[in-house]
Amino acid sequence: MAGLSHFDAEGHAHMVDVSDKPQTARSATAEGHVIMAPGTLDHVLQGTAKKGDVLGVARLAGIMGAKKTAELIPLCHPLPITKIALELAPDPGLPGVRVTATVRTAGQTGVEMEALTAVSTACLTLYDMLKAVEKGMEIGGIRLLVKEGGKSGRYEAAP
Amino acid sequence: MAGLSHFDAEGHAHMVDVSDKPQTARSATAEGHVIMAPGTLDHVLQGTAKKGDVLGVARLAGIMGAKKTAELIPLCHPLPITKIALELAPDPGLPGVRVTATVRTAGQTGVEMEALTAVSTACLTLYDMLKAVEKGMEIGGIRLLVKEGGKSGRYEAAP
Amino acid sequence: MAGLSHFDAEGHAHMVDVSDKPQTARSATAEGHVIMAPGTLDHVLQGTAKKGDVLGVARLAGIMGAKKTAELIPLCHPLPITKIALELAPDPGLPGVRVTATVRTAGQTGVEMEALTAVSTACLTLYDMLKAVEKGMEIGGIRLLVKEGGKSGRYEAAP
Amino acid sequence: MAGLSHFDAEGHAHMVDVSDKPQTARSATAEGHVIMAPGTLDHVLQGTAKKGDVLGVARLAGIMGAKKTAELIPLCHPLPITKIALELAPDPGLPGVRVTATVRTAGQTGVEMEALTAVSTACLTLYDMLKAVEKGMEIGGIRLLVKEGGKSGRYEAAP
Amino acid sequence: MAGLSHFDAEGHAHMVDVSDKPQTARSATAEGHVIMAPGTLDHVLQGTAKKGDVLGVARLAGIMGAKKTAELIPLCHPLPITKIALELAPDPGLPGVRVTATVRTAGQTGVEMEALTAVSTACLTLYDMLKAVEKGMEIGGIRLLVKEGGKSGRYEAAP
Amino acid sequence: MAGLSHFDAEGHAHMVDVSDKPQTARSATAEGHVIMAPGTLDHVLQGTAKKGDVLGVARLAGIMGAKKTAELIPLCHPLPITKIALELAPDPGLPGVRVTATVRTAGQTGVEMEALTAVSTACLTLYDMLKAVEKGMEIGGIRLLVKEGGKSGRYEAAP
Repeated sequence: MAGLSHFDAEGHAHMVDVSDKPQTARSATAEGHVIMAPGTLDHVLQGTAKKGDVLGVARLAGIMGAKKTAELIPLCHPLPITKIALELAPDPGLPGVRVTATVRTAGQTGVEMEALTAVSTACLTLYDMLKAVEKGMEIGGIRLLVKEGGKSGRYEAAP
Repeated sequence: MAGLSHFDAEGHAHMVDVSDKPQTARSATAEGHVIMAPGTLDHVLQGTAKKGDVLGVARLAGIMGAKKTAELIPLCHPLPITKIALELAPDPGLPGVRVTATVRTAGQTGVEMEALTAVSTACLTLYDMLKAVEKGMEIGGIRLLVKEGGKSGRYEAAP
Repeated sequence: MAGLSHFDAEGHAHMVDVSDKPQTARSATAEGHVIMAPGTLDHVLQGTAKKGDVLGVARLAGIMGAKKTAELIPLCHPLPITKIALELAPDPGLPGVRVTATVRTAGQTGVEMEALTAVSTACLTLYDMLKAVEKGMEIGGIRLLVKEGGKSGRYEAAP
Repeated sequence: MAGLSHFDAEGHAHMVDVSDKPQTARSATAEGHVIMAPGTLDHVLQGTAKKGDVLGVARLAGIMGAKKTAELIPLCHPLPITKIALELAPDPGLPGVRVTATVRTAGQTGVEMEALTAVSTACLTLYDMLKAVEKGMEIGGIRLLVKEGGKSGRYEAAP
Repeated sequence: MAGLSHFDAEGHAHMVDVSDKPQTARSATAEGHVIMAPGTLDHVLQGTAKKGDVLGVARLAGIMGAKKTAELIPLCHPLPITKIALELAPDPGLPGVRVTATVRTAGQTGVEMEALTAVSTACLTLYDMLKAVEKGMEIGGIRLLVKEGGKSGRYEAAP
Repeated sequence: MAGLSHFDAEGHAHMVDVSDKPQTARSATAEGHVIMAPGTLDHVLQGTAKKGDVLGVARLAGIMGAKKTAELIPLCHPLPITKIALELAPDPGLPGVRVTATVRTAGQTGVEMEALTAVSTACLTLYDMLKAVEKGMEIGGIRLLVKEGGKSGRYEAAP
């Protein structure tokens, strides 16, 4: 199965050998969103302004989630992450909240999964905090935006 | 902030007190999907048939991810989960893979977050295994389908 | 060694057998504080009012730390915690921040360690967030205030 | 909020970017203590001499706790720790047990939090093992003693 | 595949639904051993008598390992363990160390895996502590001795 | 106690200081097996061929278990693992399944424990998945086969 590096010649899953790759600076940015009813978004907006910091809790969950990537994704390499930052922007046009995460490392493999896991964990946490007022929210649009470093070089998502 | 049970009267995040809730049977089913290019889906389909079991790895990751829900989602209660099952169905119409997860417990609070975390972790794992052939995949449609048990009773998503 | 229930007759550490204890409602409240320079406390106070929510991050760390108690304390029983709440109060008189945590469960053993671990983790997180401006802060006064439920009944600390 | 590096310009928590810092040898030593009744300390002293190694269990908990620092403290960087050592000294003058921890790494950020977490976890474990004989023990005096390496250089606590 | 309850009718792995099983008292005892050279065993025996408590460290690792069973074994249910005890007996006849672990719970499924994981983790820790003097040690004889409780009743290994 | 590097001069357990060791390429291979009745092995063989992939689940558990080594083994250093691969070979001659694991890193200390933990976790998972048809299986023969890199150089087990 040419291309699927997570399987060996016999089709057995393994953690890819990156021992001989150089340690280079790597970064990845991913995005996603939670779509909700306008009234649910009002709870987020009120909280940010005054009390009940929904976005702050989700941001922290995303940061801590990124550090758990190698525990969650079976074939991911453990990496010494050097930066994690998330932006959570309420967007009345969705309506909902847009989440962007950037992760950096100096390692032998990329941090796409860390960035995607940060976004995904932040979105799940938003759902958790808001589910008392709306169960029909939907998490979507989770994708890699930019990836830099490593042999394969820069990747940028189509707009 | 009426409605957001995860914050107290002063807007401080806390883990909601469920001490006085009865232990009842509870279940939740959630869904999501990963959209990919047709050629990427071919890798999944070949693997299932012959070697390199992409869906099997993602299914197991989803099961193990559900058990980590209370570690990932800051205000979730730890729960003695009694069942976790995932279905991963390749869908050429997306094209991509559809993921459904069902979780059960006998506890004092629901398992929506466990089901959503199972789906989310399985989708992230699919991305991880297939990213060598396509970086532009998108994870979406993550939502609660059905929830049963507890005081608030049955919830079913609009179709 | 009469009294030390964590060791058997031969002095070997073990996790005490609570199998035959009834499941009863239990709660525990613990406190602690971080002493800092007045100028460091100003950073906390400004942050709470305007931006950089130091107390919010420490509160969340305390909640998540409480859920890790059985992983951290070797002979602690894993427990289905039903409530965790922390209060973090800036106190110019210390000067510093006072932390109080209350934990509840319906279980076969108490939650003193969960409450103490919540306080301890919140204090460590305060230190982490403020150490860029002061390394000489001191964490202290970590003790059990109240414990209820179980065979040994109510315990209240001397004032 | 000048000085609080864990928050960005908008006051949002993030994990500080250390990508461009050089890897240097770093070490940190922290201390703390548990104050207890003289009779409780006798249990510790007897155990050390003969059976029921209270100090040995707490030492091991401290070592394992240090390895969990990046999981417990939300904005801590995961680090490849190269040394952890704890000393636990019964002190009839307190009366109680004094705990000192030294941690080393070759990394891009310091290990103060690892040393403080080791001390804190060892103190909590002492409390856990001795609480059957005394609930009124108090954990305190947790502070950084020495820190070496990194751009900010050597820090030594006032005596 | 009649008999393998961890797979559904289509052969997909899942966590077996135990929701409708009653909560009953359950216990399991497992054993195992590490075979080593007589000179290596001397290190263990000296340590136990005087300093460097190899058996104490391995015992604690076994207790903590049992609490990690549901994280390690993909399809295991998380369980509120009520007792964990390990015996580590030097046996010059092997020569080596024999390990026995007993685990109890009041739950909907058995604790065989917890007992086996405790034994296995203690044996690995013995290996770790002694590998500086002998790399050729062998871990073996890991098996279930007794299991009680649950619908399938008592199981006792052939002698 | 000359030789036991995990204890200091006073016999206290510590995590050995490897700060001054160079980072070198290191690898380790370990093996083990699960002995079972021929009829139980048939379940494994059928599953591999058709459905219910017992070996695939155990392989993944071994990979994920290796990443947990520093959490399980108290005095192990956390390491940035660069490769994990397991082979699981049904052997009618045992009868049972033979497990081999290879782990690589570029670090300051070896990966013997990671390889042994991978084997041990895979064996425990095999037991878990097959225990519904046979409780009398035995895990054994867990030993280090080869170790390369580091000051102590190459180690190869006697055949």
